[in-house]
Formats: sequence, structure tokens, C-alpha cells
Amino acid sequence: MRGAGRSGTVTSMRTADATDDDWPALWPILRAVARAGDTFCWPRDVDEQTVRAEWMAPAPNLTLVLRDGPDVLGTSVLHPNQHGPGSHVANASFAVDPAARGRGAGRRLAEDTLDRARAEGYRSMQFNAVVQTNTGAVRLWKSLGFQVLATVPEAFRHPTEGFVGLHLMYLVL
Amino acid sequence: MRGAGRSGTVTSMRTADATDDDWPALWPILRAVARAGDTFCWPRDVDEQTVRAEWMAPAPNLTLVLRDGPDVLGTSVLHPNQHGPGSHVANASFAVDPAARGRGAGRRLAEDTLDRARAEGYRSMQFNAVVQTNTGAVRLWKSLGFQVLATVPEAFRHPTEGFVGLHLMYLVL
Repeated sequence: MRGAGRSGTVTSMRTADATDDDWPALWPILRAVARAGDTFCWPRDVDEQTVRAEWMAPAPNLTLVLRDGPDVLGTSVLHPNQHGPGSHVANASFAVDPAARGRGAGRRLAEDTLDRARAEGYRSMQFNAVVQTNTGAVRLWKSLGFQVLATVPEAFRHPTEGFVGLHLMYLVL
Repeated sequence: MRGAGRSGTVTSMRTADATDDDWPALWPILRAVARAGDTFCWPRDVDEQTVRAEWMAPAPNLTLVLRDGPDVLGTSVLHPNQHGPGSHVANASFAVDPAARGRGAGRRLAEDTLDRARAEGYRSMQFNAVVQTNTGAVRLWKSLGFQVLATVPEAFRHPTEGFVGLHLMYLVL
């Protein structure tokens, strides 16, 4: 089945809730992102068990998977940014298979995750740690309406760029 | 034993590492802060086990206790704000016994926690969620050199003030 994405492009990409059965396909994507060390605040050598516990955490955590037919292209995780009186603000993380880049997979996963956050009743979305040098991600978020509210100076030790800033990005949903 | 605090005031307050034996004295202080619901991003009815797991978490988490003789006046917790490439930035939380306020306990605990963060090798400290209406805390942090880098709009549901902002505050150590 094919359908129109929000951008109007015909696409066979579909986002769905991830289940435990998806984990074997998600871990190689997340491992690649972790090992690169230039976007996530995880140790580069983080182990599978630690990542799985975080990425596949029980509700209110929600894990999404982007597929094209049987192929897993990416995954996102959506949860409250804070507990209790801060739980109406969402936070999310994203990882796309490096082999799937350049075909709109990141944008599609982002749009679908924002839609899901709205459906879950969140009022806004906040990213705490968008690496300043991750210009592709910053450009994507800005194109979806996010603003940089602050850049925490030298908050991220980049493997080649040294200490770089982390953006706090924000969108009213 | 009495000694001079950083402010020059003679005081018998002392900050030390907390142990499991301190928990019975820390929980009533943390419970009072949680139940008030106006400063922490915890559900107001959060249970002891949840708070204990967070506040007394193992290393690199570090829990401090402020005492005056046998009396416990307050407690703080110090840990990396992010993992891996973000772990050189500290984050901390603080709670002072309402009965101990007005005698410099909050300031003393803050100063000692900052000193400890420096000793642990952190390069900066970041608070993610200082409630805008918590003017006493905001004033204290500013007096210690913290700046407000951003205020996330309506990110905290205050029990009497409605949706109020959360400050991201930052200090180079």
C-alpha cells in the first residue's frame, strides 16, 4: 500500500508502534549512532542492554518504528520531558539508518512522532541536547517550527570538533 | 566543632556524603517538597521507593547531607546532566527542611555542592527545571553566579499559579 506523505510525496514508508520483536532491527541502527559519538549523549561503547532499557522503556514511554515494507529505516522514542508537573512537555529522540538517509526518512519519522505527541495530549516538545554541529538535524527541526531557546556552551564533547554547544529546542504542539 | 562558612559567618553546619543510614531523615524533607508540588518535577504523591531510587542512586550519582550537629537540615544530589559526551556538565537538586529555612542552610548546601562538583572535575553546572515562581531559589542561584540561559514557556503546572516557565540555569565551575 502506498500513500501520500505530509509533503505530498507518494511514499511506502509507514510509522508504527515498536514491539519487542522489532528490537533486533533497531539495535544496529542505534548502535551505529552510539558508536559515531557525534549526536547522542551516550557513551560510545554503550551496551545493548542499557540502550534497550532506555529506548524500549514501558509507558508512558512510547517507541516508534519507521518501515518501508519489511525494511526498518529508523526509530524514535517519545516520553514526558519531566515527571509530574512537567509531564505535559514531550521529549523525543530519533535515529535513522545511515543507509536510509537522503530519502526523507528522517523528516517522515519526525512528522509522525510530532503527530503522535499531539495525539497523546502533549502541549509542547522540548529537545534538551541537540548537538550544535549536527546541522542536518538542526535544519530539520527548524523547518518543522522548532526554535533554539538556548545553547549550553561546550556541553558536548565531540569526537573531532572538541567541546561544542547543545541546543535546547522547543515547539508548541 | 564550629568553623567559618564561606560567607564568614561562624556556623556549626557541615555537609557530608549521605549514606543509607541517612535516608530516614532525608525522606521527610523530600516528601514535604514533593507534596508542596511547587518546585520539583515529581508527582505530588510520589512514593518513598521512587524518590529513594533517584536520590540515593549509585555512582556517578553523589548524595550530600547538610547537618547541624545531629540535625539534618537538607540534602542535595549531584550527577552528570547527560551521559557520555555530556558527562562533564553537572546537574544537581536540592531540598532543605522548611523548619531550617532562614538560617543560611540553603546557601551553605548550595556552596558545598558546587565545591564538590568542582572537586569531582565537572566543568559547569546546569539546572534544567528551576520553576520561575520559585523566586527564592532563582535569587540564590543568581547570587552564586548562575545565569538564566532560557525559560521554557509554561513547562511547569504550578498548583496555584497555573502553567509557569522553567528556567534553564548555567554556571561555569
